[in-house]
Amino acid sequence: MGFSMQKVFVMMGSRSDLPVAEKAITLLRKFNVDYEVAVASAHRTPDMVRSLVESSDADVFIAIAGLSAALPGAVAAHTCRPVIGVPVSGDVNIDALLSVIQMPPGIPVAAVGLDRGDNAAILAIEIMSLTDPVLSDRMRDYRKEMAEKVKTDSEQVVSDVRN
Amino acid sequence: MGFSMQKVFVMMGSRSDLPVAEKAITLLRKFNVDYEVAVASAHRTPDMVRSLVESSDADVFIAIAGLSAALPGAVAAHTCRPVIGVPVSGDVNIDALLSVIQMPPGIPVAAVGLDRGDNAAILAIEIMSLTDPVLSDRMRDYRKEMAEKVKTDSEQVVSDVRN
Amino acid sequence: MGFSMQKVFVMMGSRSDLPVAEKAITLLRKFNVDYEVAVASAHRTPDMVRSLVESSDADVFIAIAGLSAALPGAVAAHTCRPVIGVPVSGDVNIDALLSVIQMPPGIPVAAVGLDRGDNAAILAIEIMSLTDPVLSDRMRDYRKEMAEKVKTDSEQVVSDVRN
Amino acid sequence: MGFSMQKVFVMMGSRSDLPVAEKAITLLRKFNVDYEVAVASAHRTPDMVRSLVESSDADVFIAIAGLSAALPGAVAAHTCRPVIGVPVSGDVNIDALLSVIQMPPGIPVAAVGLDRGDNAAILAIEIMSLTDPVLSDRMRDYRKEMAEKVKTDSEQVVSDVRN
Amino acid sequence: MGFSMQKVFVMMGSRSDLPVAEKAITLLRKFNVDYEVAVASAHRTPDMVRSLVESSDADVFIAIAGLSAALPGAVAAHTCRPVIGVPVSGDVNIDALLSVIQMPPGIPVAAVGLDRGDNAAILAIEIMSLTDPVLSDRMRDYRKEMAEKVKTDSEQVVSDVRN
Amino acid sequence: MGFSMQKVFVMMGSRSDLPVAEKAITLLRKFNVDYEVAVASAHRTPDMVRSLVESSDADVFIAIAGLSAALPGAVAAHTCRPVIGVPVSGDVNIDALLSVIQMPPGIPVAAVGLDRGDNAAILAIEIMSLTDPVLSDRMRDYRKEMAEKVKTDSEQVVSDVRN
Amino acid sequence: MGFSMQKVFVMMGSRSDLPVAEKAITLLRKFNVDYEVAVASAHRTPDMVRSLVESSDADVFIAIAGLSAALPGAVAAHTCRPVIGVPVSGDVNIDALLSVIQMPPGIPVAAVGLDRGDNAAILAIEIMSLTDPVLSDRMRDYRKEMAEKVKTDSEQVVSDVRN
Amino acid sequence: MGFSMQKVFVMMGSRSDLPVAEKAITLLRKFNVDYEVAVASAHRTPDMVRSLVESSDADVFIAIAGLSAALPGAVAAHTCRPVIGVPVSGDVNIDALLSVIQMPPGIPVAAVGLDRGDNAAILAIEIMSLTDPVLSDRMRDYRKEMAEKVKTDSEQVVSDVRN
Repeated sequence: MGFSMQKVFVMMGSRSDLPVAEKAITLLRKFNVDYEVAVASAHRTPDMVRSLVESSDADVFIAIAGLSAALPGAVAAHTCRPVIGVPVSGDVNIDALLSVIQMPPGIPVAAVGLDRGDNAAILAIEIMSLTDPVLSDRMRDYRKEMAEKVKTDSEQVVSDVRN
Repeated sequence: MGFSMQKVFVMMGSRSDLPVAEKAITLLRKFNVDYEVAVASAHRTPDMVRSLVESSDADVFIAIAGLSAALPGAVAAHTCRPVIGVPVSGDVNIDALLSVIQMPPGIPVAAVGLDRGDNAAILAIEIMSLTDPVLSDRMRDYRKEMAEKVKTDSEQVVSDVRN
Repeated sequence: MGFSMQKVFVMMGSRSDLPVAEKAITLLRKFNVDYEVAVASAHRTPDMVRSLVESSDADVFIAIAGLSAALPGAVAAHTCRPVIGVPVSGDVNIDALLSVIQMPPGIPVAAVGLDRGDNAAILAIEIMSLTDPVLSDRMRDYRKEMAEKVKTDSEQVVSDVRN
Repeated sequence: MGFSMQKVFVMMGSRSDLPVAEKAITLLRKFNVDYEVAVASAHRTPDMVRSLVESSDADVFIAIAGLSAALPGAVAAHTCRPVIGVPVSGDVNIDALLSVIQMPPGIPVAAVGLDRGDNAAILAIEIMSLTDPVLSDRMRDYRKEMAEKVKTDSEQVVSDVRN
Repeated sequence: MGFSMQKVFVMMGSRSDLPVAEKAITLLRKFNVDYEVAVASAHRTPDMVRSLVESSDADVFIAIAGLSAALPGAVAAHTCRPVIGVPVSGDVNIDALLSVIQMPPGIPVAAVGLDRGDNAAILAIEIMSLTDPVLSDRMRDYRKEMAEKVKTDSEQVVSDVRN
Repeated sequence: MGFSMQKVFVMMGSRSDLPVAEKAITLLRKFNVDYEVAVASAHRTPDMVRSLVESSDADVFIAIAGLSAALPGAVAAHTCRPVIGVPVSGDVNIDALLSVIQMPPGIPVAAVGLDRGDNAAILAIEIMSLTDPVLSDRMRDYRKEMAEKVKTDSEQVVSDVRN
Repeated sequence: MGFSMQKVFVMMGSRSDLPVAEKAITLLRKFNVDYEVAVASAHRTPDMVRSLVESSDADVFIAIAGLSAALPGAVAAHTCRPVIGVPVSGDVNIDALLSVIQMPPGIPVAAVGLDRGDNAAILAIEIMSLTDPVLSDRMRDYRKEMAEKVKTDSEQVVSDVRN
Repeated sequence: MGFSMQKVFVMMGSRSDLPVAEKAITLLRKFNVDYEVAVASAHRTPDMVRSLVESSDADVFIAIAGLSAALPGAVAAHTCRPVIGVPVSGDVNIDALLSVIQMPPGIPVAAVGLDRGDNAAILAIEIMSLTDPVLSDRMRDYRKEMAEKVKTDSEQVVSDVRN
């Protein structure tokens, strides 16, 4: 119990993408969402990507990659479930960002911002919330917490500026 | 009957975004998915955006906008349901694309490619397919059709090139 | 007394934008211009943005935000008073810059350069100077000080280079 | 009578910028705002720019230019009144846009979007509305018209899509 | 006979890439190089890409694709033979270009310029020329022809300009 | 007589660059400056570039090229005389522009704007004017003509707008 | 013995490019491939580039350069053997990348990613593997090692995340 | 004596541009070329720019500036002598680069690369060498030194790599 029955697969293209993946994992844990994690490369281990995707019962995939960032598209090629793509920052930045978002007609990737593992998790939870009222309530609470945090920050800033 | 019980809201920031919206609508119709449609501007009619979002029982939102493209984020600000953002092409292109994808932590938008209303619809259907086996089967068939189309195209190209 | 009767509202999208806001505040204080300050997010607290804008008697708004930087546009959506937008630097930079400047027809934002909280304040003061001769004189003096500073810098550089 | 006592100077860097200037002029006329117009080049006629600015009693300047787009900054260098800069589109686009927005500390330009002569006029009117209740009322009406137009567009689109 | 014993596989991600592929095919024919051609999509038909690559006895692959342009990388993932990638132009251009060139360590793609199907063929022929003296001679002749063409063009231009 | 004793070499990387070269030639003729013209490619005919440069008695070189635009740098590599580089527009634009301007330390190219053959000629004439009072006077007259043209344009625009 | 009979020439445009060259050299050594190395500048020592290329019996050239990065094209201008170009990172990055990839028709460079000396070596080895079964086997083994490494990384990440 | 009779004016837009100016000054001193130096801002002290330019007897101007980088164009507006523009690096980089190079027809700036004060000086010396055989000889020697340096670097690298 405690764990939602839905699951997210967090796949990263390289071990160096772990810090971005951890932003996603932290939120999935906070929301008590089941997840699995793997490193798998669209270019170095295409079969591994395929078998991981096809054998997984995850509802939503989060694919994290930098540079020409083919992983999100490679995951999407092997499943009809939603795939969220997270471009990872580097020397050019816009390379990963464009590679993830500019998918051809027919095979979408849900692209989130550069290094936004956190937003990938929230988007996954929003998707799963559609049929999970408990998760949906938690997300609404999370939104409220965020809004409260903004208000607290505002008060703090007002007070800092005054002094 | 015939219609799925889930629904998609296709919102565009300006009437000139209709051609991109129509790519989405064509697919939603093809998949027999219920949808509603509206023009509403994050900057000219922020209250209308808000009331449309809050009063809608849509499961997924598709928000289509060009230039500084605030509509997808404005929709996301008023709902915890998934919001898919479609940047619309113009003189700069990368303006709408970056405005849609680079959302701050906490409020994600699922960005698809420039003018990719079609992919927004497919992504919405993938999300709704998670709990709708009929829709899920249709999507799998659609994928097969696409693959068949590629094979037919390939044969045609081989034949064209030979002559 | 001493304070001008006009007022500027300095709103930032996140507490991390404070260093840019402080550049504005320093100048507003130097010119003895009344101001209020707040953190409010276009995406996390859209209602707070709205109520702050609608309840404020500020003459000019300065809105500071990074990434997809919707705050300046969100403020502009709720007022007919001038809104100055300051894009904040990050990994991509051009994302915030384009989001702030590329507003749709009808709802302008007066965009200043990346992290240019100082120029936002000066622009606000220029606007308020139109009807405040004291402020106008102070601005003319400030320009002269700047020009003097350039001359002093020039002499210093000439002397440095000679040795 | 009929004309507001405030005035806008619409300066363009080249005669070829006239279509963008006309977007501004159309709106200034609609709002019954007095204006003057000139072609003057920061590079070909710097003295003309200077004498036009210094001898003008305009309250707000709109400067329109393409390519390295120095005109808005050149106008700002000779006045403490607000200067609105309009980058004009061309082969690169981002050249004019960055030249207008990225002003150095101390001399701001209020940059609006690419070819947005219309928004430059609206921003100028918003500035002048601060002390002109008639103009302020007109702007509020204009906003309402725009919002009405969005609603009409929305109904039209809903009706178009249904058939 | 007449045909070299080496072979090039020209794969395009979509039938719409045919004009770029034809630039390659024209040159391969001119050099009497054997080739095969196919349409196969990294995202719509990943298995087809894989089986075409693994069952082919081509020495060099040319992969042509636009947008997020994953095809060259997908081909490279399934072979240790050289893969030449051709980004195809579109609304953004730099998306395909960066997707093709910015491959991760370990799996290179030999990227040529936007729409440069011709250069892809020449590069393939240069590679095959290393062990084929006849092809090598033809390439040297081709270079000479190009140089002659430049000289003729120069004379023509000199004559045109004089008159 | 009539012709200045100094000379400009206008070299273009491809015959298709002729329209940009003609902008330069028109001005050189107007100023009665001697010139020679050639097509020569840094990549297809490197020896031709070298021998043309080394055997020429031109004082200033204008090198015009698109894409990776190596011609200006290749000319500069073979002479210590000033080389002006003109990037030519295409699908990417910023490719030629950056290739021409971003020369390594030690071997400068004087880069002018995209397709600005006219400005290349004027820059060449400014250089040659340093030691040619007649040319210098003509340039001063040309500046005055340009300034007059701006004034005439301004009057025309004022008159057009009034009606 | 031990050494392959084929050879790679690793040329860098400046001594500061050595770290990128070393990524190539490390791999060439690992694969027991013969290589030579030199610093030679397309702009400072064009004759040296030419004589090094023309006198070398290398099968494949790797040319490494930053900024306007003309070296790969300059090498390609003097040989019909394959030339692999490596753009080197700097303040702009996209300058070197575009200069290397956007070669004109007729003279291709095989561009690899920013600072990807490693991929340049692998591409060179793939080319030479076409006629060297030993090298071909080593490359296949290398691919397997990489795939194994991904699997090990994946297990490590799974274990790290669990704790 | 010892000093050439020609002179270069090195003007920077801000004291913070001094490191880039010093690259120019170091070379001017090495070549024994007379120079003057100043800080003057196109936006903060337009009159100072004008009077410095008009009262100077310099043959060539080097203008150094960042951000919207109007200084080179402002100098060019007040003289018919050659103006070399040096864009200075910052958060965006391409802002200064495009502002300097994309001058309108009629008023060219000779743009050199980002932060390339050194190349600005060499270009100035190349221009002055046209009529100064001593300077011309020094420049030819400098070129030889550079070429020698490349050869020494190459030998050093060969030796480093071997060990």
